[in-house]
Amino acid sequence: MPAMKVNTLPTRTLWPVVGMRAVDIIDQSALPHDYRTLRLSTLEDAAHAIRAMQVRGAPLIGVTAAYGLALALDRHANDAALAAAAATLAATRPTAVNLHWALMRMQSRLLPLPSGERADAAWREAGEIAEEDAAQCQRIGEIGLALLRPMAEQGGRLNIMTHCNAGWLATIDYGTALAPVYAAFDSGIDIHVWVSETRPRNQGLLTAWELRQHGVPHTLFADNAAGLLLARDGEFAIDAVIVGADRIAANGDVANKVGTYLKALAARESDVPFYVAAPHSTIDFSCTSGAQIPIEERDGDELRMLHGRDSSGQPARLRQLFADEAVANPAFDVTPARLISAIITERGVCPADGLRRLYPETRHD
Amino acid sequence: MPAMKVNTLPTRTLWPVVGMRAVDIIDQSALPHDYRTLRLSTLEDAAHAIRAMQVRGAPLIGVTAAYGLALALDRHANDAALAAAAATLAATRPTAVNLHWALMRMQSRLLPLPSGERADAAWREAGEIAEEDAAQCQRIGEIGLALLRPMAEQGGRLNIMTHCNAGWLATIDYGTALAPVYAAFDSGIDIHVWVSETRPRNQGLLTAWELRQHGVPHTLFADNAAGLLLARDGEFAIDAVIVGADRIAANGDVANKVGTYLKALAARESDVPFYVAAPHSTIDFSCTSGAQIPIEERDGDELRMLHGRDSSGQPARLRQLFADEAVANPAFDVTPARLISAIITERGVCPADGLRRLYPETRHD
Repeated sequence: MPAMKVNTLPTRTLWPVVGMRAVDIIDQSALPHDYRTLRLSTLEDAAHAIRAMQVRGAPLIGVTAAYGLALALDRHANDAALAAAAATLAATRPTAVNLHWALMRMQSRLLPLPSGERADAAWREAGEIAEEDAAQCQRIGEIGLALLRPMAEQGGRLNIMTHCNAGWLATIDYGTALAPVYAAFDSGIDIHVWVSETRPRNQGLLTAWELRQHGVPHTLFADNAAGLLLARDGEFAIDAVIVGADRIAANGDVANKVGTYLKALAARESDVPFYVAAPHSTIDFSCTSGAQIPIEERDGDELRMLHGRDSSGQPARLRQLFADEAVANPAFDVTPARLISAIITERGVCPADGLRRLYPETRHD
Repeated sequence: MPAMKVNTLPTRTLWPVVGMRAVDIIDQSALPHDYRTLRLSTLEDAAHAIRAMQVRGAPLIGVTAAYGLALALDRHANDAALAAAAATLAATRPTAVNLHWALMRMQSRLLPLPSGERADAAWREAGEIAEEDAAQCQRIGEIGLALLRPMAEQGGRLNIMTHCNAGWLATIDYGTALAPVYAAFDSGIDIHVWVSETRPRNQGLLTAWELRQHGVPHTLFADNAAGLLLARDGEFAIDAVIVGADRIAANGDVANKVGTYLKALAARESDVPFYVAAPHSTIDFSCTSGAQIPIEERDGDELRMLHGRDSSGQPARLRQLFADEAVANPAFDVTPARLISAIITERGVCPADGLRRLYPETRHD
């Protein structure tokens, strides 16, 4: 039970094991039902963890891939082995660009080195990526808090809607969309979070679990209810939507968990600000628009399987009943920049079409 | 298994039992896992069937309430008993206006009669309401087909998206939103239906089950994916969205299963026509706008319970884990008339703000 786990929780989602060439992770595929950790000791362990969503969330996927490369280089560190390991990790999931960003950074750091020095350097570099991720998320929290504070000062409870899980579970620590929420809560702001279930994988339950650990008041709702909730006035009016991102194109179009786009449409219709929070590693300046972002199509069993019980209490029956049911299961959608009020990064807050001004050093055409 | 059930299925969702003062229903709370029928012999049976969603769908709720009144009058038929029975049935669910429409019609037919004649008259009137519902839904199918045929004649597959279940299971027969789909399929049109899961009660599975019985090709998707699917071009472009309704205000605002509004927003954004199909009994001319429609808030356990498995395969664990989790669970939302391309009734097709011209005999201010 989570209440009993609080004191034993690690402070992070992934951590190197002292005295071993391995990292431990929280197995997020078991949450919120069960809390357990898993040890990653090989490249294949890391690739499987990403593929099976034992780790998820764009920033955490990036860090896991970096450590996956370090695990691979412990065995073979020549150029071919490095390229093959990077290719294996790159193929695990297509949409979150942090994965590719981390692999590129690792390769450009490691390729110039002699093979014999690469493994140790890889462990150091992966550790630095993890530290930077945590620091950037902490900074996103501070910057987001500055955005939320004036809303809170207008009086009454601050109601924030989020989608999927973009909390500390999706990063190394602090989270992206939830970093400002935690910062606001810790600074004494009366905040309430509206958490969408996030079918088909139900990552909203991870968000509810996280918020509960931290004591942040929140309410769970079915994804379908987002429009109605965003249209409400008065005490329960939503003050802002904050989501994370899996890849942000140069023009500010945002790929994030499927369903984000519907919330953005409803937010605009009700004049509710819609914010995206992400570190720079989520921005893909090589994608000029959202149309170029590959959208992962996942196994239809995610819908076929997770539908509660038949009369005997067994969930497997539905799979049998619908085993040959055609399913469309895109894992992400694209929210156009025009629906986004602002993007919050570790550098500051900018309009969705202002990313290049926030990152002037980024090489682009 | 549904494939074995085809030949034993009744042709309707509710039918009077020959030689008895009782009606049988399909227990829709067990579908699609189990097919079973239930016998309603008392007012309380009928009220419970509506409350527990053993019958659901606005037109079917109305017919069930009419028979519920007949069952009550078999026991006590004075004015007080009639009023009390109507009040019991009226309190079962707040949003679907067909319930109140049927109770009003029954009472205005029965109150002028001597008590001794009321029970038989009630059974006849309930039967007439049922027959009219089936005939009107059949007519909605024909009228909707005339709307779909020109789309189909533009070549390629006709892709229709729907939400929740507005098929024959939601009515006495034929359905509302699905009546044009069945009519199109039966007339040889190459049609494909995109079926949203419809959390938290998963009525999309009822739609998938229905379509499968009839052989209509279809694809299931998570509610979150509606925006992405509606934004697609080419072979998979959605040609139209068709949904049912639980109550339509005089100005054309439509209360329907929660999530309908999000699909309407996404349809408008992608220039996809958005149709609502309903018989006149769903139109509430006494509601001037959607803001006056009461929205049912259902038990939060609908979200807490139906989340698949913990590691031991038991769904109950999540309830335990989240037993005190706050849940917002509105069962309906309101789609403003401005997002609706047209309303399809048994009288014809009209713009959402044109209902009064379609029903000029309706008394209104």
